[in-house]
Amino acid sequence: MKFVTAAHKEHVFVGMLIDDRIIDLRKGEEQLFNTSELPSSMVELIERYETLSGKLAAIHKWGQEAPKAEGIHALEEIKWLAPIPRPRKNVFCVGKNYADHAIELGGKDDIPTHLMLFSKAPTTVVGHEEIVLHHQDVTKELDYEGELAVIIGKKCKNIKEEEAMDYVFGYTLINDVTARDLQERHKQFLLGKSLDTSCPMGPVIVHKSVIKNPGTLEIETKVNGEVRQKGNTEQFIFPIETIIATIAKGTTLEPGDIIATGTPAGVGKGFNPPRFLKPGDVVEITVEKIGTLRNTVK
Amino acid sequence: MKFVTAAHKEHVFVGMLIDDRIIDLRKGEEQLFNTSELPSSMVELIERYETLSGKLAAIHKWGQEAPKAEGIHALEEIKWLAPIPRPRKNVFCVGKNYADHAIELGGKDDIPTHLMLFSKAPTTVVGHEEIVLHHQDVTKELDYEGELAVIIGKKCKNIKEEEAMDYVFGYTLINDVTARDLQERHKQFLLGKSLDTSCPMGPVIVHKSVIKNPGTLEIETKVNGEVRQKGNTEQFIFPIETIIATIAKGTTLEPGDIIATGTPAGVGKGFNPPRFLKPGDVVEITVEKIGTLRNTVK
Repeated sequence: MKFVTAAHKEHVFVGMLIDDRIIDLRKGEEQLFNTSELPSSMVELIERYETLSGKLAAIHKWGQEAPKAEGIHALEEIKWLAPIPRPRKNVFCVGKNYADHAIELGGKDDIPTHLMLFSKAPTTVVGHEEIVLHHQDVTKELDYEGELAVIIGKKCKNIKEEEAMDYVFGYTLINDVTARDLQERHKQFLLGKSLDTSCPMGPVIVHKSVIKNPGTLEIETKVNGEVRQKGNTEQFIFPIETIIATIAKGTTLEPGDIIATGTPAGVGKGFNPPRFLKPGDVVEITVEKIGTLRNTVK
Repeated sequence: MKFVTAAHKEHVFVGMLIDDRIIDLRKGEEQLFNTSELPSSMVELIERYETLSGKLAAIHKWGQEAPKAEGIHALEEIKWLAPIPRPRKNVFCVGKNYADHAIELGGKDDIPTHLMLFSKAPTTVVGHEEIVLHHQDVTKELDYEGELAVIIGKKCKNIKEEEAMDYVFGYTLINDVTARDLQERHKQFLLGKSLDTSCPMGPVIVHKSVIKNPGTLEIETKVNGEVRQKGNTEQFIFPIETIIATIAKGTTLEPGDIIATGTPAGVGKGFNPPRFLKPGDVVEITVEKIGTLRNTVK
């Protein structure tokens, strides 16, 4: 199942993407069950997923069969929001998790031997098709980073790597937009990673049941149609299990937490001369089995 | 005025500290005005402060005169919570903002020329008198850092330094508890700064009207009664105005955001041999005009 947060006219709802239609979950529930138990926020859906999964499966089936019912929208009728429009804490981000990317930004000495973790403020988050601000008064070096992101499904702390995947809810895409000059100047990454609109997320969260092995996914980033990044999550230095278990050592992870897993080689700064983002540029990130996240710089 | 979040029996409330008593603001309002307009969370109080300030002043006056009324508690009757028990994003923290501290952790080359900013997850926050976990399975080098913290009062972005103080709500204390081994091993600070209970905060938020100049405050940290850190905020490399304006360049700050301003020399790692925290240690941070934040390691 693919979950979305979207708006139809002014009404924001949690929905399910089926082919090229989006079902408003609460409207589906009303027609199918005459109840209103389903939540109106994605984080609550994640928290209550286990008790709701039977109902969700029924709505999914109904959505496939009833493409003209109320609360089922064509894609052109809705506005995409980030699946989690306002995370309850900063987005966790892994730095330099593909060796080739570490090398393009520095050299072989930059390949980390331990997980490198930083964060992006919740105010950075925007959805699929939303604008990424160019911030030309603040940075001259705005760059893209296509990434697979993991959504935590259940509270966990001090867990073994072998059990880490039990705490995953699903996966989405993130563009970890970065101001390279700020990132370098301020040493710690937070400032260069937290400009408003610098965390496009979506378009959907794919439930983990759909992706048997998140460690073998093709990932690709295009700028204005030109392929810039092309990698596979099998190149991860730190696989997802290791990332989750390392963060959760002493630090509680919670439902709805977002962990971006790092970006492959091919960012703008890696080119000679560098190819930073300009107003009008369209960035598209595609990960197989999840979808394409597209945003325009303005 | 000094604002607190506290619990009386199981009831959590936003209150005001007057001498050695705490007024439950909503109970005070009920008795004084027979209304229930005041919020039950500190972040909402901050957001609505301007419209509520007349009522708050009246309750403050009433609290000074009516020490036996309902909703006025002696300190021993309440449990302290952090003033903002669950921040809506990570706590912003400035690194190495006192030259002597930068030198004790490295050398003169470590004195930053640009603001160094990292964050602590919201799950780290605990209140005055709460336990700080020792995390002995995760770190061998748990350390203290006494800090003044600024609470943002109004949304701001792209502001001048000269106007930055207009967006401040008030001040509190933070112990930026740090796992030095994790901080060093993982390069970016987030992991070493985000262990559960590693952000004691409080005991109160002092409204900015009480502190004319936050740039000349004595700050002191004791461990088991022994003075370890002694500094003054006049030693800041980056003053509060600069910190706020630098973060807000392209990044929206919001009411209730917390910015820890850095720690003076005298942390455990600065001693030879280092003096890290042990179970049973009592850490007390005092900043003049604000109060003392005390926590025990367990």
